[in-house]
Amino acid sequence: MARSIDIQTTTKKKQKPLQHELGFGIHFTDHMFIMDYADDRGWHEPRIVPYQPIVLDPAAKVFHYGQTIFEGLKAFKTTEGKVLLFRPERNIQRLNRSNERLGVPALDEELALDALKSLIAVDQEWIPTEPGTSLYIRPFVIATQPALGVDASTQYQFIIIMSPVGNYYAEGVNPVKIFVESEYVRAVRGGIGEAKTAGNYAASLKAQEVAKEKGYSQVLWLDGVHRKYIEEVGSMNVFFKINGTVHTPALNGSILDGITRSSIIQLLQHWDIPVEESTMSIEDLFKDAKSGALEEAFGTGTAAVISPIGELNWLDEKLVISDGKTGEISGKLYDTLTGIQRGTIPDPFGWMVEVNI
Amino acid sequence: MARSIDIQTTTKKKQKPLQHELGFGIHFTDHMFIMDYADDRGWHEPRIVPYQPIVLDPAAKVFHYGQTIFEGLKAFKTTEGKVLLFRPERNIQRLNRSNERLGVPALDEELALDALKSLIAVDQEWIPTEPGTSLYIRPFVIATQPALGVDASTQYQFIIIMSPVGNYYAEGVNPVKIFVESEYVRAVRGGIGEAKTAGNYAASLKAQEVAKEKGYSQVLWLDGVHRKYIEEVGSMNVFFKINGTVHTPALNGSILDGITRSSIIQLLQHWDIPVEESTMSIEDLFKDAKSGALEEAFGTGTAAVISPIGELNWLDEKLVISDGKTGEISGKLYDTLTGIQRGTIPDPFGWMVEVNI
Ligand SMILES: Cc1ncc(COP(=O)(O)O)c(C=O)c1O
Ligand SMILES: Cc1ncc(COP(=O)(O)O)c(C=O)c1O
Repeated sequence: MARSIDIQTTTKKKQKPLQHELGFGIHFTDHMFIMDYADDRGWHEPRIVPYQPIVLDPAAKVFHYGQTIFEGLKAFKTTEGKVLLFRPERNIQRLNRSNERLGVPALDEELALDALKSLIAVDQEWIPTEPGTSLYIRPFVIATQPALGVDASTQYQFIIIMSPVGNYYAEGVNPVKIFVESEYVRAVRGGIGEAKTAGNYAASLKAQEVAKEKGYSQVLWLDGVHRKYIEEVGSMNVFFKINGTVHTPALNGSILDGITRSSIIQLLQHWDIPVEESTMSIEDLFKDAKSGALEEAFGTGTAAVISPIGELNWLDEKLVISDGKTGEISGKLYDTLTGIQRGTIPDPFGWMVEVNI
Repeated sequence: MARSIDIQTTTKKKQKPLQHELGFGIHFTDHMFIMDYADDRGWHEPRIVPYQPIVLDPAAKVFHYGQTIFEGLKAFKTTEGKVLLFRPERNIQRLNRSNERLGVPALDEELALDALKSLIAVDQEWIPTEPGTSLYIRPFVIATQPALGVDASTQYQFIIIMSPVGNYYAEGVNPVKIFVESEYVRAVRGGIGEAKTAGNYAASLKAQEVAKEKGYSQVLWLDGVHRKYIEEVGSMNVFFKINGTVHTPALNGSILDGITRSSIIQLLQHWDIPVEESTMSIEDLFKDAKSGALEEAFGTGTAAVISPIGELNWLDEKLVISDGKTGEISGKLYDTLTGIQRGTIPDPFGWMVEVNI
C-alpha cells in the first residue's frame, strides 16, 4: 500500500432499502472515498468519510468543460459470506487510460484498488444477497479548479461512491428491443469514444429519449464516419451469433473496451466456440438475419451483464431475433458469468478478487 | 418579467483585483444568480445570492454524464458610465438550443435576460473600465439529480456567475499561431458539436495540450468525417480573406453558431465586402496561401473578439499569413466591434442592450 487511507466512520447509519426495491444507482451506502489532487502536491489525502455532498466553487471546471472520468464495477457476497470483486484491476487500468485521454493526472493503481477494497470493507453490510442484486461501485474523477480558461485543470478529486442495485433492466434477463440510431452519433475516431467520460453519455441522451418514446430500451450506435458500421449499445458492447460464429465489433478507438466484452470473448474461446472481432456493417447484419444466419444477439456490460436482444429496428425495418427469446449462448453466458461472479461456479480465469472484510 | 427575482445581497464584499492583473475567468464578483428545476415544479425560485459554493450529492448527474450547458457573453461600461450588453438575447436563444440538444428543459428567455440584467445591476461596480477589459458573464445549467441511470436528469440548476476580465490572450491583439489538428477530432455531424456543452471542450483538451507544447496557442479543427474540411478554432470561429472575399466555414451542425461570427458577417456585408459561408478544405487553403491569394486569417469569439492568425501549421508545413502581422480587415473589424461594444462608435445594428443600473 502506497499511502495509508484515513478512515472516519459515520455516527448516523442510514436505513437500508428493501432488497427487492433497490433499482439502479438510487440508494447510496454510508461512506465514500475521497482523494485530492493539486499540481504541486500530486494525489494526496486518501480518506474514507461519511457519504456527504461535494462542495465546489461554481467556476469548478467540471461544470463547464466536463473534464471528468468514471468507472463502474460490482461487488458480490457469496452464500458463505465472502466478498468478491469482478476484475477490479481492469477498471482501474481503464480509468487511467481515460484519464490520459482527458488530460487528467494518473492515479496510483495499487492505491486505487486499496481504496476500493477499504471502502467495501467499511460498508460491507450494504452488499445485497438476493438473486440479481449486487453492490455497484462508481469511482470517478472531477476537475475542481475554479477557473474559466479552457485548459486542463490543476486540481481534481477522485471519489468512490457505492450503491446496492437490483437488475439494471426492470425487465430482468428478458430480451430487450434496441433502436439502431441513424440520425445522432455518439462518438467518432479521433474523439473521446473509448474513454469513459461524461461527454459521451451527454451526447447519447437525446437519441436515447427518442428511442424510449418509440418503445425501445436502448440505442445501437453506428460509426460517425460512414454511419454504417456497428459500434455498441448505450452502455453495452454488442455480440451477434452468425452461422455458429460469435461476432463483435473490433475495438476501433470510438467504442468502449468493455471488461464484460473481453471476459465473454475469453469464455467463448474457453468453450471452443468460434469468436471474431471485426468491422461489421448493419446492412450485412440485416442480410444475415433475413437469410436465417443470425442466430442470437446480445449486449454485454457491468450493469446488465448479458442482455439478450430480441428486436432491432433500423430505419423502421424491424428484425426479430431468436423469436424474441433469450438465445442458448446468451443464456449460458449469463448463467456462467453471474455464477462465477457470485462464487457458485468455479472461476478458471482468476477473475474474482476477494476483499478481506 | 415572468417571475420576480429574489435578491439577497452580501454583507462581506470581496476586494476587487487590480484592472491590469485581471486575467480571464479567475476572479468572480460578489453575487451569483441561481434558479432550480424539478420535473414537477418546472423552473422555480429565481434568486440572486452572495457568490457561494455549489453543494451537490456525489451522484449528481453532472459529475457522471455531463448533462450541462454553458454560455459566455460580456458587459461593458462606457465612458459616460452606461452599462451595455452585446446581443444577450442571442446567447439566451443559443442556450435554449443547446438545452434542446442535451435534453435539458427550456428556460423562459425573458426571465433569463432579466436575471442577467439584475445580476449585473447588483454587481455593476465590478465592471472594469480600462481598455481591453470587460465583465465576462457565464450562465450555465447543470443536471443535479442524484441517480446513476443514464438518462436525462429530473432536476437542474441554472446559475450565472461573472468575472471581470482582461484580454483573453496574454499577448493582446497580436496574431496567434494555430496548429491544424489532424489526429484528434472535436465533433462530428450528428453529434453535439453545435451545442455549447462540456463534452466538446473535454474532447479538445488533449489536442490543445499537445499544440501548446509545440508553441501554438490553439488548435484548428478539421471535420470528423473526412478530416479535410475546416471547422473552427478551440473557442473561436474562423475567417479567411482570399482574393478580396472573406470566407468562413458554413454552419454544418458540428461547429458552434458563434455570435461574434454572425456579427462579423453582418459588418462585412454592411461594408460591401464580399463574404461567403461555404465548405472549405484545408488543402485548398494551403494552395491559396502558396499562390498568394490568402490575404488574412482571423478567429472570432466573445473572449478574444478578433484574433488575427499569423501562422498555421498543418502536418508540419508552416504557413505564415499577412507576414505574421494583423491584417487590415482584421484590425478594422476589431476596432469597429470593440468600439460598438464600448459605446465609442455608433451601433447601426441595434446590437447593444443597455442595463439599467
Ligand atoms: C458506452 C459503454 N459501452 C460498453 C460498456 C460495457 O463495459 P463494461 O463491460 O466494462 O461494463 C459500458 C459500460 O459500462 C459503456 O458505458
Ligand atoms: C467552440 C467555439 N466556437 C466558437 C465560439 C465563438 O462563439 P461566440 O462568438 O458566440 O463567442 C466559441 C465561444 O465562445 C466556442 O466555444
